[in-house]
Amino acid sequence: MTLRHVADPDKRNEAIEPSSLVAHFGADEPLALESGERLGPWSIAYQAYGQLNADKSNAILLCHALTGDQHVANINPVTGKSGWWETMVGPGKPYDTDRFFIICSNVLGSCLGTTGPASLDPATGKPYALTFPVVTIRDMVNAQAKLVDRLGIETLFCVAGGSMGGMQVLEWAASHSERVFSAMPIATAAKHTAQNIAFHEVGRQAVMADPDWHSGRYLDEGTRPEKGLAVARMAAHITYLSEQALHRKFGRNFQDRSAPTFSFDADFEVESYLRYQGRAFVERFDANSYLFLTRAMDYFDLAKEHDSVLARAFIGSRTRFCIMSFTSDWLFPTRDSRAIVHALNAAGASVSFVEIETDKGHDAFLLDVPELLDTTRGFIDSAARARGLAVPARRAVP
Amino acid sequence: MTLRHVADPDKRNEAIEPSSLVAHFGADEPLALESGERLGPWSIAYQAYGQLNADKSNAILLCHALTGDQHVANINPVTGKSGWWETMVGPGKPYDTDRFFIICSNVLGSCLGTTGPASLDPATGKPYALTFPVVTIRDMVNAQAKLVDRLGIETLFCVAGGSMGGMQVLEWAASHSERVFSAMPIATAAKHTAQNIAFHEVGRQAVMADPDWHSGRYLDEGTRPEKGLAVARMAAHITYLSEQALHRKFGRNFQDRSAPTFSFDADFEVESYLRYQGRAFVERFDANSYLFLTRAMDYFDLAKEHDSVLARAFIGSRTRFCIMSFTSDWLFPTRDSRAIVHALNAAGASVSFVEIETDKGHDAFLLDVPELLDTTRGFIDSAARARGLAVPARRAVP
Repeated sequence: MTLRHVADPDKRNEAIEPSSLVAHFGADEPLALESGERLGPWSIAYQAYGQLNADKSNAILLCHALTGDQHVANINPVTGKSGWWETMVGPGKPYDTDRFFIICSNVLGSCLGTTGPASLDPATGKPYALTFPVVTIRDMVNAQAKLVDRLGIETLFCVAGGSMGGMQVLEWAASHSERVFSAMPIATAAKHTAQNIAFHEVGRQAVMADPDWHSGRYLDEGTRPEKGLAVARMAAHITYLSEQALHRKFGRNFQDRSAPTFSFDADFEVESYLRYQGRAFVERFDANSYLFLTRAMDYFDLAKEHDSVLARAFIGSRTRFCIMSFTSDWLFPTRDSRAIVHALNAAGASVSFVEIETDKGHDAFLLDVPELLDTTRGFIDSAARARGLAVPARRAVP
Repeated sequence: MTLRHVADPDKRNEAIEPSSLVAHFGADEPLALESGERLGPWSIAYQAYGQLNADKSNAILLCHALTGDQHVANINPVTGKSGWWETMVGPGKPYDTDRFFIICSNVLGSCLGTTGPASLDPATGKPYALTFPVVTIRDMVNAQAKLVDRLGIETLFCVAGGSMGGMQVLEWAASHSERVFSAMPIATAAKHTAQNIAFHEVGRQAVMADPDWHSGRYLDEGTRPEKGLAVARMAAHITYLSEQALHRKFGRNFQDRSAPTFSFDADFEVESYLRYQGRAFVERFDANSYLFLTRAMDYFDLAKEHDSVLARAFIGSRTRFCIMSFTSDWLFPTRDSRAIVHALNAAGASVSFVEIETDKGHDAFLLDVPELLDTTRGFIDSAARARGLAVPARRAVP
């Protein structure tokens, strides 16, 4: 396997001068972080698709996952590949750009143009690296809320996302309930489990073990902790797939040979595939951002913010929820989604829940899974009617 | 947490001059390996407990797991800790040293005295490192068979072991059927799955990414790839525990604090625990051995050795089998054990199968799990009667 064309091999352009839209906030508009620190000046990079209607009632905010970005439905400027949710976002698609104004911003702490550890600290002119403050899911959401304010939008028609994106959806619904007409947290959880924290810690230790990491100052040193970050990605990637999917895709097949080499070459297809995933990832992502974003997920515990009772996060909520999980997702298994559903029920909220049968594992939320598309379309159209937005006539599904 | 006393901090003494028993095989007795290579001279280090009876019918061979060793029921000379199966092996215990002659040898490729990559290559006087031949489970078993020959034992009363040890048990039962009166493969599989290969590959890449690994020549260079090996162990350790066990033991508890530090310190107990596991492991294990032994497990596919039909591995077998699995073991789940049971049934072999309910995950086979002890005791006593060995009267279990 060879890597596809990489438009920006050192990733610095997109981190510092993103090709997407950017909202800048000055030193007089700092972001108050959960840690107590104040970050400013700061910027949030985003993409927008479709048209905002006259009464600004048709905006959908999509929240990306750990290593995602704002490039939902356009060619990614770093990888040259399609957007990460092209299956879901576009004309006539479930998040229909003919009818909705769709926003996706790069999360705080990431490396595609929103302020993060790879950004230049105005106080020093050098990359923040580990002097960047540790941010949380709530901080990411507060940053998004500032962007939504800047765009003049009071209420979002929908906030949706999977995995870490789903955590942001839950935080939006809890902390900015009145601004969220409908919410779709997909393949996510209201708190990160011990096992998930453990996998993240392995990844962080892999990065930090790489001498090219230089205690986070690798950009100043002119190095990149590629080996450590690749190992982190390989470990994480296993958790994104199901055992069944790995078996179906690779089984014990040998790579380009019929017998073992009795060596440490990538004899098995699954080894070759994982190595490729590791190499491809380091071409597009900043190692320090990986540390900060995994940390944000680890810290997420929505109940804890509400006297340790998750239902209290949603009391009085008039948001319509659609929760989705996937049967073979062992990173964010259905029981995590059920815990959210139970809390919403206890809070008297409006909630639909769909567990989708698939062997594709956690990554299913990114893939062309018909039930995901159909459920999203159905929920969005129903919510649109309730919001008084036009819904196109559809042929009945046979 | 602090590390306990380590008797042999550089591990070299036990690798080269083990404190256990050792059987040496000269250049005239090379071991023919599955790769086609011949290894010799070579040595196999072992421990023995109890007395061999007059007709040599009471020998039990225990096979250790990936990072285990021959020190089953004595203080480990490297770690200063108890033997790894003290719950199972001793006077009056399920593998009863008052009645049985119990042998456990360090596997080929390991680092506790049996020839492996840390051993000195007689041709160069330097450690083999990566010039050591890649060995397989079958090679390990053939080496053990030479030891059993040397001890003058024709038939083993029982061969038992968990995880990689269970793979050796299956290989013994398939390749040396007539020498195995009873067999206990525990928490194991007849082939390594794609997911398990993937986790091993992550570990190997973590070791190889460490510049202190020096392409395997770290002993010559006076370094040790401690960081890489620790990351490998951390990733593997997660797979040895169940999600439930991690939740029960650690949950989202903070380590020695009540609130997050907003840093990359080990805030959570589970992080601190994993880091400790990584540090403790590098104190006792050789990094190259870790590469070779994980590779041996990856290559294991017993059906493949028998025209891809697992049942053919056991045709005509008169061995009595007892298969055990654990409900929360996701590394070697019950379905892997059921596949073995189905093959044994298809081959008309004698087989008992017990799935033990526990939340302790894969590591349950090493722990004080009453059903494991009771099942083993019952099976061993029943087999002993069939073999004409004395069985003590027991009080009925209420």
